[in-house]
Amino acid sequence: MPRMLRVNMTDLSVKVEEVPEAYATLGGRSLTSRLIADEVEPTCHPLGPSNKLVIAPGVVSGTSAPSSGRISVGGKSPLTGGIKESNAGTPVAQQLGRMGYKAIVVEGQPQDDGQWFALEVDMQGGALVPVNGYEGMGLDEAFKKVFADRGSDKGLIANGPAGEKRMASAGVCFNDKEGRASRYAGRGGLGAVMGSKRLKFVIVDATGAPGVALHDEERFKSGQRKLVEGLRNHDVTKPGGALSSYGTSVLINILNEVGGLPTRNFSAGRFEGASNTSGETLAETVKRRGGAGTMGHACHPGCVIRCSNVYAREDGTEQASAIEYESNWALGANLGIDDLDKIAEMIRLCNAFGIDTIETGVTLGVAMEAGLAEFGDGDGAIRLIEEIGAATPLGRILGQGADFTGRAYGVTRVPVAKRQGMPAYEPRAVKGIGITYMTSPMGADHTAGYTIAPEILAVGGKADPLDTDGKAEMSRAFQATTAFVDSSGYCLFTTFALLDFPEAMAGMVDTVNGVLGTEWTADDLVSLGMETLSLERAFNERAGLTSAHDRPPEFMRHEKLPPHNGVFDVTDQELDSVFAR
Amino acid sequence: MPRMLRVNMTDLSVKVEEVPEAYATLGGRSLTSRLIADEVEPTCHPLGPSNKLVIAPGVVSGTSAPSSGRISVGGKSPLTGGIKESNAGTPVAQQLGRMGYKAIVVEGQPQDDGQWFALEVDMQGGALVPVNGYEGMGLDEAFKKVFADRGSDKGLIANGPAGEKRMASAGVCFNDKEGRASRYAGRGGLGAVMGSKRLKFVIVDATGAPGVALHDEERFKSGQRKLVEGLRNHDVTKPGGALSSYGTSVLINILNEVGGLPTRNFSAGRFEGASNTSGETLAETVKRRGGAGTMGHACHPGCVIRCSNVYAREDGTEQASAIEYESNWALGANLGIDDLDKIAEMIRLCNAFGIDTIETGVTLGVAMEAGLAEFGDGDGAIRLIEEIGAATPLGRILGQGADFTGRAYGVTRVPVAKRQGMPAYEPRAVKGIGITYMTSPMGADHTAGYTIAPEILAVGGKADPLDTDGKAEMSRAFQATTAFVDSSGYCLFTTFALLDFPEAMAGMVDTVNGVLGTEWTADDLVSLGMETLSLERAFNERAGLTSAHDRPPEFMRHEKLPPHNGVFDVTDQELDSVFAR
Repeated sequence: MPRMLRVNMTDLSVKVEEVPEAYATLGGRSLTSRLIADEVEPTCHPLGPSNKLVIAPGVVSGTSAPSSGRISVGGKSPLTGGIKESNAGTPVAQQLGRMGYKAIVVEGQPQDDGQWFALEVDMQGGALVPVNGYEGMGLDEAFKKVFADRGSDKGLIANGPAGEKRMASAGVCFNDKEGRASRYAGRGGLGAVMGSKRLKFVIVDATGAPGVALHDEERFKSGQRKLVEGLRNHDVTKPGGALSSYGTSVLINILNEVGGLPTRNFSAGRFEGASNTSGETLAETVKRRGGAGTMGHACHPGCVIRCSNVYAREDGTEQASAIEYESNWALGANLGIDDLDKIAEMIRLCNAFGIDTIETGVTLGVAMEAGLAEFGDGDGAIRLIEEIGAATPLGRILGQGADFTGRAYGVTRVPVAKRQGMPAYEPRAVKGIGITYMTSPMGADHTAGYTIAPEILAVGGKADPLDTDGKAEMSRAFQATTAFVDSSGYCLFTTFALLDFPEAMAGMVDTVNGVLGTEWTADDLVSLGMETLSLERAFNERAGLTSAHDRPPEFMRHEKLPPHNGVFDVTDQELDSVFAR
Repeated sequence: MPRMLRVNMTDLSVKVEEVPEAYATLGGRSLTSRLIADEVEPTCHPLGPSNKLVIAPGVVSGTSAPSSGRISVGGKSPLTGGIKESNAGTPVAQQLGRMGYKAIVVEGQPQDDGQWFALEVDMQGGALVPVNGYEGMGLDEAFKKVFADRGSDKGLIANGPAGEKRMASAGVCFNDKEGRASRYAGRGGLGAVMGSKRLKFVIVDATGAPGVALHDEERFKSGQRKLVEGLRNHDVTKPGGALSSYGTSVLINILNEVGGLPTRNFSAGRFEGASNTSGETLAETVKRRGGAGTMGHACHPGCVIRCSNVYAREDGTEQASAIEYESNWALGANLGIDDLDKIAEMIRLCNAFGIDTIETGVTLGVAMEAGLAEFGDGDGAIRLIEEIGAATPLGRILGQGADFTGRAYGVTRVPVAKRQGMPAYEPRAVKGIGITYMTSPMGADHTAGYTIAPEILAVGGKADPLDTDGKAEMSRAFQATTAFVDSSGYCLFTTFALLDFPEAMAGMVDTVNGVLGTEWTADDLVSLGMETLSLERAFNERAGLTSAHDRPPEFMRHEKLPPHNGVFDVTDQELDSVFAR
């Protein structure tokens, strides 16, 4: 019987509730967004008692479906001021799925007497218990301590020192397969929402979990086979393919080549040091050093793609996991830094402090623009991140993100949309992804509508990245499909195969139908995703976000980006055409 | 011939332009708002090249009309994100009026090579000249130096160290009669806009000014007599009346008595130390100390009301001008501080650094809530203001205002509307002024629709401050009338007489008609003011401000305010009824 946990931080009660009929076919993002839209007043203070934090595994998470260990976290974002869903790949998604918990809803706020709590979840329900001694502790250390105390079979959800301080760059952290504090629902400051509720950990004990109930096991299994087949045959996702060999950082050279790799705070699209941080160099370094390092790491059991990695120091000891493309770029090219060891150290610090690597990298780019460190100065960048961890006044500024830092220092070259830092694709060089950044209800987010597939990777068609024609429609279609995928529990990277192989797509939909007993077709995905987008946009509108918030930062309209020397020339009308108002 | 100056900071050109026919009857706020609405893209970055700074004296400023030396400054606000007009009383208003300059429009932005400029204005036009050596200098010292170099007959407009740093609490400073850097268009960060254009000073040489052209001198003079008569007979404005005897601080005891004096960051409506900072105590202290201190000071020649003052130290040396009610409250009761000497020192520092005393006081209240100093700690508060002047990281936070500081420290009791700090009247205790705070296109601003007159002072009628009935209409009427008064060049305090004496009102309108050749009646004021409000609201809507931004901070909806223990119970529907959408 699917159920959900309602956790009231005001009276410290935890209740098991039936899942309302209207939510029966929802999961992941479609469920977090629906709950937030139904239960949260859009004008509330994101860090006040009226906001809620919703954690929901995807529909197929916990089944044997491949690469389906995603979990969504939702709430009103302290960064964007709008609705937020951010998701991560983690065994915790699978545990909650197998336990039959479709959502954990955290609401209210305790008296601010400094006490932190852990939510313990097991098959019987949940309970809040005080936790002491973890405040200010890095999550690397905290995870080791909790697993040592509670057993390494537990699932762990946490906010770090930055979330405790309610910083808008704070993410919600999940453990990976080996218990690292490394898998993040990183974007939009949901760690700050968790911190505002004084919830330090969720500790999941899946003992006795019955597994995900399947309405139609045959259909599910047949779908699963088709999807696995697709993933194993696609050049991007197959074993020994681009992602498992080089990790997501394979994109560094590709984006640099097309002039779309934002460099030194979005002042150029090509970085002379790119090859030093490329996926190829990363893989070569990891292989050469040996020790704890590995490529082809899976963030949760049952992943076919295995795009992640563990990075080891020269001496073979583990330094950080994972050197993803976005983190690599944000803390590398975007800061003019081409030293993987420095980048890995910054990622290690971000994971320990509980902050989003993208927002942090974009913030540091703005900080360098303001003169707080020189572009290219890896040690200077590390020092700035340490300020965030120490929550000094400067750290309080940087921890609030790029928009905030730009305001503090009067910088106008601030690459954000809806106040959220832009990821690793330059809107002036790749127009479709720019449209996604500007119009997504989530703020600047590459995963919200990854038009990079056709614009750069020739997956799911082929389109000129510099062209604006048809890109509004393209972004809309990708955003809608993505909203469905983010609800299913599947990793977004399955879409490489889904886009190119109709059989894989049909298989994916069959797994969802097999779980839910629905009769959806591949064609239904867009309209199902659009339903989620519509309620997210309606929430945002009531929260005060309008078409004025679907605009690029002004400098992208008049500053020409080398090497193509173009501006972001998608018109306001085209931006407004993505979604009918 | 009325004309305006167009100052282009990109190519450093200054042009004299004719005033377009459509602007012929505009002045002050109606002209700054009209120019901003006509010429500035609402989604632009407030500190970028597309924003403009407009400075415009009122319609009758420079004539012999009483208390008419107001000057408006307009632009897109870096604090609220919407349109902004803020005005000050200063001889500079009268000088520009007499010179026939209806507006100075500052646009563009120079290359950011660190060079600052002064705009020299005389009867022939204007010129931009580099100025060196003033960066970071307190405005008290800077004004002395400029007047010593250029002659004390000049008019001076400046941004201080905070404006140079583009802080959102930075105001635009004007000299008073004696050349003090003390008269501020303080609200909404227009000093930061001036700073973003690298304009340090405007130096006005009124030599040869012909005076304001009067279309109908008889009508003007007759109106002027009636208005003077009204001001001399009203208890609030008359010589020896409340304002000239005790200054605006006369309101401290009054608001404290009705439980509407926001205390310790809006956590109570009554302050046990109020009598130590009251207007009565202020006047007694100034009288007792003698020396440089004086009550009944006029901010510009020709003021009948003379509500300002100069505060002297125990030894008789001048400390600060002026201890206005708002500054006194913001840096006093709002911080739990009841020591006039500490308050005066804070005001001195704010004037030197070029920051708004209201925003700064509200910010410090939030900072104390965050634990950065204890409520009641005057020396701690002074240290925090010094951080702003020094532009330390903490100063960068505080200098951006209350909303920003609340974000930096995760504080949710943040008394702002449209991000602007609330002035000295508690919305939960005085409902009409709360409606003005929430709905004014300017953000929280008592002067935008001063319903305190009927709600507290029994001027222009009498209304129960705790009652919500009819308050939406009351706020609308006051906001509309105010928009006209802010355009006329008259001080808002003339309205005490205007509201109670129909003859004075008719006289005021006659002075305006006498200057412009219009045939407006007293009844036309509301519709003329509403025209200005409408274009301001249209600008804000295009900038992305919606009814969601016309809401109180969440805590005012659920935290009960002693001593009345009420919440802000004006409904969203009532708030939305103030202006039709």
